Amino acid sequence: MISSLIGSDTICAVATAPGVGGIAIIRVSGSEAIGIVDQIFSCKEVRTLERAKQRTAYFGRFSHERTVIDEGLITCFKAPHSYTGEDVVEISCHGSSFIQQKLLEALTDQGCRMAAPGEFTRRAYLNGKMDLSRAEAVADLIASESEAQHRMALAQMRGGYSAEFAQLRERLVYLTSLMELELDFSEEDVTFADRTQLLQLLDELMEKIVRLTESFRLGNAIKRGIPVAIAGATNVGKSTLLNALLGEERAIVSDIPGTTRDTIEDVLNIDGILFRFIDTAGLRSTDDTIEALGIDRSYNQMDKASLVLLLIDALRIADEDYRTALIQLLPRLEDKPFLALLNKVDALDMEEISSVKQVLSTLLTTHTSTDFKPLILPISAKRGDGLDQLRSELRQALSLPELRSTDLIVSNARHHALLTTALESLRTVCQGLTDGLPTDLLTPDLRGAIIAIGEVTGEDITSDTVLHTVFSHFCIGK
Amino acid sequence: MISSLIGSDTICAVATAPGVGGIAIIRVSGSEAIGIVDQIFSCKEVRTLERAKQRTAYFGRFSHERTVIDEGLITCFKAPHSYTGEDVVEISCHGSSFIQQKLLEALTDQGCRMAAPGEFTRRAYLNGKMDLSRAEAVADLIASESEAQHRMALAQMRGGYSAEFAQLRERLVYLTSLMELELDFSEEDVTFADRTQLLQLLDELMEKIVRLTESFRLGNAIKRGIPVAIAGATNVGKSTLLNALLGEERAIVSDIPGTTRDTIEDVLNIDGILFRFIDTAGLRSTDDTIEALGIDRSYNQMDKASLVLLLIDALRIADEDYRTALIQLLPRLEDKPFLALLNKVDALDMEEISSVKQVLSTLLTTHTSTDFKPLILPISAKRGDGLDQLRSELRQALSLPELRSTDLIVSNARHHALLTTALESLRTVCQGLTDGLPTDLLTPDLRGAIIAIGEVTGEDITSDTVLHTVFSHFCIGK
Repeated sequence: MISSLIGSDTICAVATAPGVGGIAIIRVSGSEAIGIVDQIFSCKEVRTLERAKQRTAYFGRFSHERTVIDEGLITCFKAPHSYTGEDVVEISCHGSSFIQQKLLEALTDQGCRMAAPGEFTRRAYLNGKMDLSRAEAVADLIASESEAQHRMALAQMRGGYSAEFAQLRERLVYLTSLMELELDFSEEDVTFADRTQLLQLLDELMEKIVRLTESFRLGNAIKRGIPVAIAGATNVGKSTLLNALLGEERAIVSDIPGTTRDTIEDVLNIDGILFRFIDTAGLRSTDDTIEALGIDRSYNQMDKASLVLLLIDALRIADEDYRTALIQLLPRLEDKPFLALLNKVDALDMEEISSVKQVLSTLLTTHTSTDFKPLILPISAKRGDGLDQLRSELRQALSLPELRSTDLIVSNARHHALLTTALESLRTVCQGLTDGLPTDLLTPDLRGAIIAIGEVTGEDITSDTVLHTVFSHFCIGK
Repeated sequence: MISSLIGSDTICAVATAPGVGGIAIIRVSGSEAIGIVDQIFSCKEVRTLERAKQRTAYFGRFSHERTVIDEGLITCFKAPHSYTGEDVVEISCHGSSFIQQKLLEALTDQGCRMAAPGEFTRRAYLNGKMDLSRAEAVADLIASESEAQHRMALAQMRGGYSAEFAQLRERLVYLTSLMELELDFSEEDVTFADRTQLLQLLDELMEKIVRLTESFRLGNAIKRGIPVAIAGATNVGKSTLLNALLGEERAIVSDIPGTTRDTIEDVLNIDGILFRFIDTAGLRSTDDTIEALGIDRSYNQMDKASLVLLLIDALRIADEDYRTALIQLLPRLEDKPFLALLNKVDALDMEEISSVKQVLSTLLTTHTSTDFKPLILPISAKRGDGLDQLRSELRQALSLPELRSTDLIVSNARHHALLTTALESLRTVCQGLTDGLPTDLLTPDLRGAIIAIGEVTGEDITSDTVLHTVFSHFCIGK
């Protein structure tokens, strides 16, 4: 805990979503919170808010400079029994933008400062109400748009995640203490810790960290959505496909400022995982010499994607030009998870489908390296055939593990970077142990690993910069 | 009160603004509110919500079908001490759209129904927590974007408005009782109420109603914003003018769905009143024969406006073609409040300004009817000259009265219609009294007036249709 960093001033912000609603909540936190709100609030029930019961809602009138602003409720939470650990007052007012504005003006006139993004949660962390990884999970929870994002953020917020890191750190500290014990007695040439035993302990820890680091691929995909590029000529049925998929499971998408996100085309929530579909242009004309620039742009978009869906028109596969364009494209797809969708099969009978599929399969295997065997999925975007299979293949094509609620998944890039640092340090230690280096050359790296792991939960944070980076991603009012 | 109309089911809705925020509030109201929330909420402090203290916030966990949804606060307000007068539970959760969605699903699974727009306030009215005009003011308060809108809605919500109508109705009832007394004894040919006295009483009441009806012009302007059309050739400085005005007092404008509003160009908040500036196209080319269609469109927009600002380029007034186009426009402006703005005077010296102004004045008076004397205001949109005067002229050109906080202003179209009905009835009564009609022919009209006035506060409402109309304009969750 870095109590010295705690701002002593009182902060305020609208905590509910921006815009007009039935009601809005303004949160005030700091040592002067109750006194400041008292200046603008009058209530028949209590003469002064200092006498108000904790956690109890009081109805009254908000006014400032002899003008009534609104009528509403206030609830006081006295330190340390509040979200931030400081005195907190929650104001519940009518949700007009004008009233929210006027109340904030009244509060700042009385000495409040407008809160910075995430400042309430930052104070909660600094006052020991939650550790850093749990604080980060609050922001993730608020931004969550899918079942998987929500489950991951909630698990992290509820503390299992922190406990795991705390345990990891503890075991590293134990390992270090064993080695330092050896160091203290080094002149006597005593080896307290058996090097084989140390190596075994290190291996266990490294294996655990590797597993966590690897979970980031899934975690990041869940958190940011999985980019899927759709390649294909025009009139191949891309829009029809997206609409058919969207029609059944529409993603919760919001364009509220603050939820930073790349420009996205369409977002699909499939089995609780968000897929972001990216349009690839430039593959329109099949018999023209496609300009280098256009191709590059499409290839770039494919490179950014985790998965490419190549949409193929089953009715045009006999067309020489169409096939040529397709073949030109193939070498670029080899290093990507990739699904070939043979669309418009509703116009064909079973035998024709089978024959077209065979043609495509031959074409794909002939023009790519031997071990490249993409899955060919006959679909009808129009009629909905094959879409269920497509959904399940989407997950499988990415070889994403199943998300179980008990799994510990790293979704935070900061945590991933810290884990990678820790892992590198431990590998150095491991090498040193094997090479028989003296203990005092190994402990600095061990310390480095401990600090990195501790930074995840905020245990070893000594710089304000880390905190600034963490909390600047929050929305204001949280 | 029409208690029979009260729905006995329990309703729920998100009460805060839609979208992502730090926290969101879900409101549950009805006889089963506490029991239903209890099914999805668990808390260390109380085993069951039935034992929870009133108006007290409890921290706990929300879950449904063995899946944790969130952690947050609940506050119970037991009937009749709640907003709706029923049992109410307020849920404070993390403001993710996903969590809000999941909690609503959990609540509806447990037997809640999603609330219709305004249903909470409708229940408050039906349970006698507020009269109808105060309930309507809640919606106006939430939609308020300017000082004047806010002040008007708050005054109406706080009850002074209702009291005035109640008093008006009471006096009408007294008048009727006097006349009915006469009616009861009519066979005895006794006149209990002196007709002169009755007429005097009626006059007083009618004068009051006329004043209220007339306040609707201001009230409606405040509530909906005052449409101002800006006419003028291109490059005359319209954008510069709007930016200069906007730069100083930007209106609070939101594009939240539910705040119904016409397509507007720019909204300016001047002295607490919203002005909606409407672009008029089609007056671009000065020497071309302007096409009939284009002119019509611009004239239509001018007709919709309460005020027209004619922006004139002081540097082009010497140009014959420019003057011709201007003259063509003038006949159409005569029946509108109208301001002539002589722009770009920063390029001229005092003497030149005076001379240009003289030219324009002659042009305006020559080409319009004799009593048309528009104000000519020299301005420089670029440098800001004359803008303060323009602001005060805007209000004066509309001859809007000053808005004092003690004034009773009708801003609701429903109230205005009811007042007009009441006034017509009273005029009939008045005529009848003067003509010496027998009392029993007059009382039905008097009763009509009483019912109309009573409908404003909801006292005499016998049909559900009125209530439906009133509350369907509310946002959901209020």
